Amino acid sequence: MIQASRIAADIEAIASQSEVAPAVGYSRPTFSLEWAAARDYVIAEAEKIGCAIRIDAAGNVHARPKQYSWQESLWLSGSHIDSVPTGGKYDGVVGIVAPLEVLRANPAAPLELIIFAEEEGTTFNLGMLGSRAWVGTLSAHQLAEVRNKHGQNYWQAGANYGASADRLADDIFNSAPYRGLIELHVEQGLAMWKQDQPVAVVNAINGRRQYFVTLTGIPNHAGSTQMADRNDALVGAAECCVVLEQLGLELNRELHHTVVTVGRLNVEPNGINVIPGRVRFVIDFRARTDAMLVQGDHRIKQLVSQIASRRGVPLELDASEALPAMPLNESICGLARAAAAKHGIALPTVASGALHDAAILAPHLPTAMIFIASRDGISHNPAEYSRIEDIAVATELLTEMVTA
Amino acid sequence: MIQASRIAADIEAIASQSEVAPAVGYSRPTFSLEWAAARDYVIAEAEKIGCAIRIDAAGNVHARPKQYSWQESLWLSGSHIDSVPTGGKYDGVVGIVAPLEVLRANPAAPLELIIFAEEEGTTFNLGMLGSRAWVGTLSAHQLAEVRNKHGQNYWQAGANYGASADRLADDIFNSAPYRGLIELHVEQGLAMWKQDQPVAVVNAINGRRQYFVTLTGIPNHAGSTQMADRNDALVGAAECCVVLEQLGLELNRELHHTVVTVGRLNVEPNGINVIPGRVRFVIDFRARTDAMLVQGDHRIKQLVSQIASRRGVPLELDASEALPAMPLNESICGLARAAAAKHGIALPTVASGALHDAAILAPHLPTAMIFIASRDGISHNPAEYSRIEDIAVATELLTEMVTA
Repeated sequence: MIQASRIAADIEAIASQSEVAPAVGYSRPTFSLEWAAARDYVIAEAEKIGCAIRIDAAGNVHARPKQYSWQESLWLSGSHIDSVPTGGKYDGVVGIVAPLEVLRANPAAPLELIIFAEEEGTTFNLGMLGSRAWVGTLSAHQLAEVRNKHGQNYWQAGANYGASADRLADDIFNSAPYRGLIELHVEQGLAMWKQDQPVAVVNAINGRRQYFVTLTGIPNHAGSTQMADRNDALVGAAECCVVLEQLGLELNRELHHTVVTVGRLNVEPNGINVIPGRVRFVIDFRARTDAMLVQGDHRIKQLVSQIASRRGVPLELDASEALPAMPLNESICGLARAAAAKHGIALPTVASGALHDAAILAPHLPTAMIFIASRDGISHNPAEYSRIEDIAVATELLTEMVTA
Repeated sequence: MIQASRIAADIEAIASQSEVAPAVGYSRPTFSLEWAAARDYVIAEAEKIGCAIRIDAAGNVHARPKQYSWQESLWLSGSHIDSVPTGGKYDGVVGIVAPLEVLRANPAAPLELIIFAEEEGTTFNLGMLGSRAWVGTLSAHQLAEVRNKHGQNYWQAGANYGASADRLADDIFNSAPYRGLIELHVEQGLAMWKQDQPVAVVNAINGRRQYFVTLTGIPNHAGSTQMADRNDALVGAAECCVVLEQLGLELNRELHHTVVTVGRLNVEPNGINVIPGRVRFVIDFRARTDAMLVQGDHRIKQLVSQIASRRGVPLELDASEALPAMPLNESICGLARAAAAKHGIALPTVASGALHDAAILAPHLPTAMIFIASRDGISHNPAEYSRIEDIAVATELLTEMVTA
């Protein structure tokens, strides 16, 4: 039987592995010691239940009951254990502890648990590296080009944790041993909490585009350089932030759940009496349809380039990522609704604003997601919270689905 | 006789002391090893000429010909040797090497050279600490509250370089041994270069106000948080930057040489997929009259607080500095014009947009400044440049003035 108290204990055990104090948040960058310790905890728990473990060349951990060979077709369920800097306890973690608890309650469940390596994107400036490398949409060469804050590429940083560029070609994803992927995750948005929907099935995931932008002005003295004589890179970047927010609001009126964000921005030389000479920032843009992604891409490039050119602050714009909007598998969604109906629950259907490893697997394997409501929609924040009883209900649905 | 080649050699010797490579700029934070080495170079050169050296309790270096006692009334001339991060070769340095060359050319000149400690304000987030401590407008206690990037306060960081909180009260500025202060400096603005004025006398210095601002939003997921549900601290700060630029342009139309700058801005958590939860930035505001400083102060507070309140991102605003606009001494300006006339030069009169240690001494001692044109107005930038022949002319004027 699914026990909420065991799920809660798993969440706390993983949360205790953080680079910073709980008051500040939970920080587990991929391939950090804390990330590794949290992963080791899950591996040890899976081994206690009687699972065999393997780590694929992309660094993803797989655990399945020893009675099944690695070739047998099972359900796949999992998520990620890395976090954004000072994030919350539930993001990713819930999708790992749920299948772990399903296997605890039923050690013969036809289910493989997966921990995807590096989902968030804050460690290497690009997200879902473990799942993308596994399905082959990122090459060993591309992963040798990304760098963490220590200057290590994916293979260097992951060498101690099973990631191996040499083995990647021979260890690529194969759909034969899988019936489908079911990823549980917290919603990270306000919609379900506001409408009192504790659990929902997800039938689509927003696509994402990201842009690394550099504006180059002329650093100069803040006291003696007249307003009219300035090429201030920061005011240029600031105008971009304001105009991009307006664009997000406008596009969202056309298609709900369209969002535009500048989350990272760095100023050089960043002196209190120096006009900023260079500003680097990252634009994150998400939408539900590929048509909206194309329309927004055009508008973003146009707006930023107009501001740069009017202000005389030369622009470099690097479109670093383009992931399509992704519909999920309707028959797995049906399985979820049927499982809920058995518990007397009418399961609402939602779409995901956030990206997940499920979006990477969906083109290669029948895939769906189960969402758990996030209190006040707060996520990527230490105040992130989901009710343990809601997580337990979602875990019950997962049990029903894989044993149906 | 004043020799331009010796001045040029001094400038290069000081420039060679930098934390970073010349291609990146010149970095000498106060109390760094490079700052100390540059100061030691000037001390050694002054000793070669036959000067006595003393370091006051605020950390300022004084050098005067040994034939004069420390009580005799001499002219005072000097500037600072610290730099902004990746600054230029001339800012501050010119005002030190000029009186050094005057003493070389005439070792009996009635002149005391001074190196003020910490002028720029980038090391401790507050400028002109050496001169302010010396004249008593900053207390030992206040200097124990400022911190550099290593977490040291002024006294801790300066202990090896003669700064001493214990001695400060007994070593405070006394005007008796001084006839007046003449500070040479590069203009750091475009006006003189544009009007082909190589050298000018300065009869006023802009006042400055600075504000440390924090906007606190709600960090949240950039993909799943709808545009309408956000409290984005960065878009709030960005709107402030844009509106403050407009304010600067508007106030400058009322009173020329009014400027508003945001030079430093830091985002937290600064993740590419996290809505910014906190932004800290610094506003620097300068004007030629105290009336404009009061008017601007009111408008800045009003604008920033309206944006914060409309966007639901609570504001903390700390008015960290308020220095009045400072008229300089007309009879010293007259001395400069007379010296120029002897060389057949009609010396233009300008005002300073930048602050200088001269503004701190001016209420306590008859004070004026000589400016040297800055190519294209570029300063706080490795491309900063002034013609060595212009610097030599200004040094000739200084010689005439102190020996008139």
